[in-house]
Amino acid sequence: MPDLDRTHDPDRRSWVASANTAACHFPIQNLPFGIFSMDGQSPRAGVAIGDRVLDLSRLAGAGLLSAADPALWHGPDLNPLLAAGPAVWRGVRLALSDLLEAGNPSLRDAAVLRESALVPMAAARLHLPIFVRSFTDFYASREHATNVGALFRGRENALPPNWLHIPIGYNGRASTVVVSGTDFHRPLGQLKAPEADAPTFGPCRRLDFELELGAIVGTGSELGRPVTTGEAYDMIFGYVLLNDWSARDIQTWEYQPLGPFQSKAFATTISPWIVTRDALEPYRIACPERVHPLLPYLQERTPNNFDIHLEASLAPAGGPRGASVISRTNSRHLYYSAAQQLAHHAVSGCRMCTGDLLGSGTISGPTRDSLGALVEMTRGGSVPVLLECGATRTFLEDGDRLALTGWCEGRGHRVGFGECSGTVLPAPCQPEW
Amino acid sequence: MPDLDRTHDPDRRSWVASANTAACHFPIQNLPFGIFSMDGQSPRAGVAIGDRVLDLSRLAGAGLLSAADPALWHGPDLNPLLAAGPAVWRGVRLALSDLLEAGNPSLRDAAVLRESALVPMAAARLHLPIFVRSFTDFYASREHATNVGALFRGRENALPPNWLHIPIGYNGRASTVVVSGTDFHRPLGQLKAPEADAPTFGPCRRLDFELELGAIVGTGSELGRPVTTGEAYDMIFGYVLLNDWSARDIQTWEYQPLGPFQSKAFATTISPWIVTRDALEPYRIACPERVHPLLPYLQERTPNNFDIHLEASLAPAGGPRGASVISRTNSRHLYYSAAQQLAHHAVSGCRMCTGDLLGSGTISGPTRDSLGALVEMTRGGSVPVLLECGATRTFLEDGDRLALTGWCEGRGHRVGFGECSGTVLPAPCQPEW
Repeated sequence: MPDLDRTHDPDRRSWVASANTAACHFPIQNLPFGIFSMDGQSPRAGVAIGDRVLDLSRLAGAGLLSAADPALWHGPDLNPLLAAGPAVWRGVRLALSDLLEAGNPSLRDAAVLRESALVPMAAARLHLPIFVRSFTDFYASREHATNVGALFRGRENALPPNWLHIPIGYNGRASTVVVSGTDFHRPLGQLKAPEADAPTFGPCRRLDFELELGAIVGTGSELGRPVTTGEAYDMIFGYVLLNDWSARDIQTWEYQPLGPFQSKAFATTISPWIVTRDALEPYRIACPERVHPLLPYLQERTPNNFDIHLEASLAPAGGPRGASVISRTNSRHLYYSAAQQLAHHAVSGCRMCTGDLLGSGTISGPTRDSLGALVEMTRGGSVPVLLECGATRTFLEDGDRLALTGWCEGRGHRVGFGECSGTVLPAPCQPEW
Repeated sequence: MPDLDRTHDPDRRSWVASANTAACHFPIQNLPFGIFSMDGQSPRAGVAIGDRVLDLSRLAGAGLLSAADPALWHGPDLNPLLAAGPAVWRGVRLALSDLLEAGNPSLRDAAVLRESALVPMAAARLHLPIFVRSFTDFYASREHATNVGALFRGRENALPPNWLHIPIGYNGRASTVVVSGTDFHRPLGQLKAPEADAPTFGPCRRLDFELELGAIVGTGSELGRPVTTGEAYDMIFGYVLLNDWSARDIQTWEYQPLGPFQSKAFATTISPWIVTRDALEPYRIACPERVHPLLPYLQERTPNNFDIHLEASLAPAGGPRGASVISRTNSRHLYYSAAQQLAHHAVSGCRMCTGDLLGSGTISGPTRDSLGALVEMTRGGSVPVLLECGATRTFLEDGDRLALTGWCEGRGHRVGFGECSGTVLPAPCQPEW
């Protein structure tokens, strides 16, 4: 494996000037991968650098990306790169970091190629970066599990007895994972007030978001072969922001005994840029202290969590003052790492695949301003959140735009995730049933 | 749409003699689709007729299947055929029925083509017929839900309050769906006795099967667009037998609050031949009488259930007397049809896709000999089942082979599903955690 140390060097600067500002999410230390297209072009692989996208397909065509097969970059998704494995990921990271480094003239001074390969991100359309083979959502924040458990089952049954032993998760719906910027309709479904005899049908009235991190599986595992947490860590290609939009009223009525279903299956939004685990390496930290020792298959020999600052902001339609930040939290609060979740996922012999997406579960911190979902902030809809524009919210209203962002704080730079946003459209017209 | 009446005619006979016996599952009235390969050949599309497989790729190459694009048959899965839609499905069915009809000489008398296109099923390898985009498992047998609910939650809480209003289901794991004949390892996982303080780790001790029917979605739906039960019926390409192997001890400990996860993610077996809904048309029947009226979006204007006789048999390794039939049931017991399940699945706006697989849930009848899982037959493992060889079983042991079969009883013929089987291998060696 190539040594990646110089790709993390905080003193490294790029000849792409916009990459060198302190607040930029995409400095030369980051180099996240995505799929983009320009007007009239087919979707292809790119890397974000400053306010630009570097077209890897064009770069490979010019012979400047010899670390990998040129076919990896032609799109429509990054799954071929994911399947290529860690040695290729690292080789490409190193090549790109060196190519974009301030003193390297190979692309910097090749004006024609540079103009065609380095395009403004603002003019690019960003696509779903992977074909999501399967989507699994976990439940790894102890604060969130306790807060929501108390609302759904009462304070005394808040944290289920298995929670401190198992990284609890469920299979979600891969076909409804969409890229940031994809607006979606408020879902229809069955609703039942606690005192009602029978359910009614209509638009969800308690529409919520969930602030999560998504881990993307690069290399898979075989049916019938468990993997260790160490192997699992290495199987993960990278991470995205993830919003698991949730219909709380549909969820309350449907979730027993087989778990959430249609309440979580109308949209799950991910950010377009996959921040590689190689880029996150300097920000590894240990999981919180264990309440009970974990079973051996879940124990970790290395710190596999990350120190990522996360925020959620809400902007009502046409509001005069834009977005209000309604949560500031950190992925360090996760009780289970993505590596532990993946090891648990495979422990029965479940085959894991290139393109599997694992949501961390809502990330809530211990304080009122660090909660990752409205249902927690508003204590089940009873205490409204006040926005800067003067409006209040218990749950999301039509036209609301919810955005997540997140970054690791480096010395003089940020390794950032960009934005993960979506706007709520009204419920669809009902067909003639 | 072509008129399919003559494809159902009980008097129609084939020039493939083995298709004309009363017990054959694959008479000319059936014509199920699958993916097969012969030694040294790539997997391709075929249709079962008697004890033969008709190679559709070869047939199309010879110009005898003009009803559809030749590219549909080249494999490695039937998803291109599924996506082609009902008009193509029917055109091909009609063409194949006429081609195989006793009096039609076009293939019957073309000796060279016939020899190469009509191969013995016993010599063919049968593959997973579709790329399973997503797998969803429902819970549609009232008897099963009541029996299992009583074991998991007590008799008084057996049927959850939502069950008579919602076709309850959960997202399963697509990557572990395997074709009949694929043996699998007993899963490892967390186990906890009710009286124990903490879980232990090891091989499942309560390994079970679940007798189900699987519906295969042909044409998909758009994100944000609910579908009616009538549309849902038409979206389904066909049906297979499905065994949702289950680790009951892992399930008991893990399933609260987000549903079954690793207890169902080590293997789900389906039969290799997809019986089309066009072939099942003569066997349509109404669902059981409703306890409560359903909400309008779930109501049906046509009978969308099917009258399919189903059996499960168990053969211990090296047993002297072969397999014992341990259950005889019928899909008519399902309280919700696959069309209702699919309409519910899409109601939130969930995008449904070509290749989605919907399990019916375990099909149990009202009598002790019509139960679809060992946990029900043995009342939670307390009353062993006696096999013909003299052995008894509470749950599955290593080496046990469990097979499902099923058919519709026509006049002088059976429209059958063949077999859906798997053998339990010992738990895998554990890695050095």
